[in-house]
Amino acid sequence: MGGHVMNARENLVRQALEGLEVSDGDLVRLHRDPDFVTRADPARDKVALVSGGGSGHEPLHTGFVGRGMLDAAVPGDVFASPNALQVRAAIEAADTGRGTVLVIKNYTGDVLNFNIAADLLSKTHTVETVLVDDDLATRSEDEGGPGRRGTAAVVVTEKVCGAAAEAGAPVERVRDLGREVVSRSATLGMSFQAPVNPLTGLRSFELEEGEIEFGVGIHGERGIETRPAAEAADLVESLTSPLVESLGLGRGAPVLAVVNGLGATHGLELSVAALELRRCLEGQGLRLERTLVGPYVTSLDMKGVSITLTALNDELAELWDAPVLTTALR
Amino acid sequence: MGGHVMNARENLVRQALEGLEVSDGDLVRLHRDPDFVTRADPARDKVALVSGGGSGHEPLHTGFVGRGMLDAAVPGDVFASPNALQVRAAIEAADTGRGTVLVIKNYTGDVLNFNIAADLLSKTHTVETVLVDDDLATRSEDEGGPGRRGTAAVVVTEKVCGAAAEAGAPVERVRDLGREVVSRSATLGMSFQAPVNPLTGLRSFELEEGEIEFGVGIHGERGIETRPAAEAADLVESLTSPLVESLGLGRGAPVLAVVNGLGATHGLELSVAALELRRCLEGQGLRLERTLVGPYVTSLDMKGVSITLTALNDELAELWDAPVLTTALR
Repeated sequence: MGGHVMNARENLVRQALEGLEVSDGDLVRLHRDPDFVTRADPARDKVALVSGGGSGHEPLHTGFVGRGMLDAAVPGDVFASPNALQVRAAIEAADTGRGTVLVIKNYTGDVLNFNIAADLLSKTHTVETVLVDDDLATRSEDEGGPGRRGTAAVVVTEKVCGAAAEAGAPVERVRDLGREVVSRSATLGMSFQAPVNPLTGLRSFELEEGEIEFGVGIHGERGIETRPAAEAADLVESLTSPLVESLGLGRGAPVLAVVNGLGATHGLELSVAALELRRCLEGQGLRLERTLVGPYVTSLDMKGVSITLTALNDELAELWDAPVLTTALR
Repeated sequence: MGGHVMNARENLVRQALEGLEVSDGDLVRLHRDPDFVTRADPARDKVALVSGGGSGHEPLHTGFVGRGMLDAAVPGDVFASPNALQVRAAIEAADTGRGTVLVIKNYTGDVLNFNIAADLLSKTHTVETVLVDDDLATRSEDEGGPGRRGTAAVVVTEKVCGAAAEAGAPVERVRDLGREVVSRSATLGMSFQAPVNPLTGLRSFELEEGEIEFGVGIHGERGIETRPAAEAADLVESLTSPLVESLGLGRGAPVLAVVNGLGATHGLELSVAALELRRCLEGQGLRLERTLVGPYVTSLDMKGVSITLTALNDELAELWDAPVLTTALR
């Protein structure tokens, strides 16, 4: 399964954050004890946008800190939520008096810790939340349980909210735009090979040669079905059609797509997926108007891909196109 | 070993190029029969910069096409040189009458085909060449054989030459700057796990658990030694110290470093490597003045990392800092 570039496992995340400051100290600043990352050049007089979650999904979220996107990112350990004191400190550092919007991926730990942080600051700060729950492979809250997982739609959410905040929108508007993105987005992922956790050295599940796992999460969760491998055209169609149906996209609908590499999937493969996605959408009469292709929400070294569709409108397209300057997106 | 997102293997590279146009059609344009990629918005009245080589190293070279870097990139099949007719067509498309500089990684097929193309155009075009041969794990030409392999120093070469061409430098100057970068650069790579070629489904070599391969190439070539795995600090030191010695870097020397992921190495790990590299260089009294950290010259899904050092001077630093707008670097 191979090793990893790391020192003692308990130092992996902290040292990676220190390394991010080495490579991108012009854009991001690491704050320590509690650990979080802010813009190197903090914004003034705008709504603050803060996100975070377990590490192992890089460039999410630290790579999206910068002008036009996040003001702060709060990393937990690998696949573990940050604690509420980290989140509170990040809000305090990022808030300029115009209020803060928290973008939270829907996992129990993240929801808990981000909401505790908001509660701790309720007397002094205006904190609104956007819950991202785009993963179609999981049940919606209406069906009972914790609801759908949050995956790559979080990138679209952070981009749109970040652009709105940068343009001076008030905190409720930034929140509402984020919630609108979530309601208009859905994601499905598949894997050829599960990730190996560097903290344990263990692969999260095993597949036989020629099998794929359909509907995987971004923490090495198994999917909803193990299927035979297929050509790219069929794979992409199997991921895309349920998204189109779930979002109720009719002919002529404008779509934004994120073709997301889950960690160890090569750029050649992601480009093939992008090509097949366009074919698939155009074959259904949809208009692929914006695409983002690359490893943006990874699951350590998982081999596989996820596809996120967002039903666009003119306002969301304009916010998507607004300038952004972060490590991972610019 | 897991599958790949691909259709018929003979279509992989062509479809990936078509997919690049889907994701980045605002920056790049695919030309077909023969296949090559140019800027979507071609430059006028400047020296043309053209590179290329086997596919499987993405984002190299197609991801570096754009303002301030390459005018055209010529992809071969996976790990196979493009042919001379592709290269000729790319030069003809990119040349604005100010001459062309070819950046060639030192592999027999690339050297052959790029030089044939230059010869075919010798009566009508001014074509200069820069040979990139930075891999310390291979023997220099003086020791006999084909000379050192070209690896990640090609990114620095393309960036510096591209900036000089954009600024209006004449063809000989762009060439000389490229050669200066090469003479001031050296690279070493290591691997935890060799890549699987999607065309054959085969892994290029096997390692036991707890072993690493030191001095690997970017085509699944074995290295110069199989060693026990080590912590990041030791790994990075073992890659860096031979580079410092080979380049004759003395105390206070300003250095540019590329910490390059070889395909399946996670961002967390690359950040740890960047941190350790800074410690290592500063421990030797060197000044790490510029860093580029990420998967820029991949070897399919190899797990591992390479480190490239370039001895900076003021002119090279300025060209490195010049604006660039490509898919992979901006």
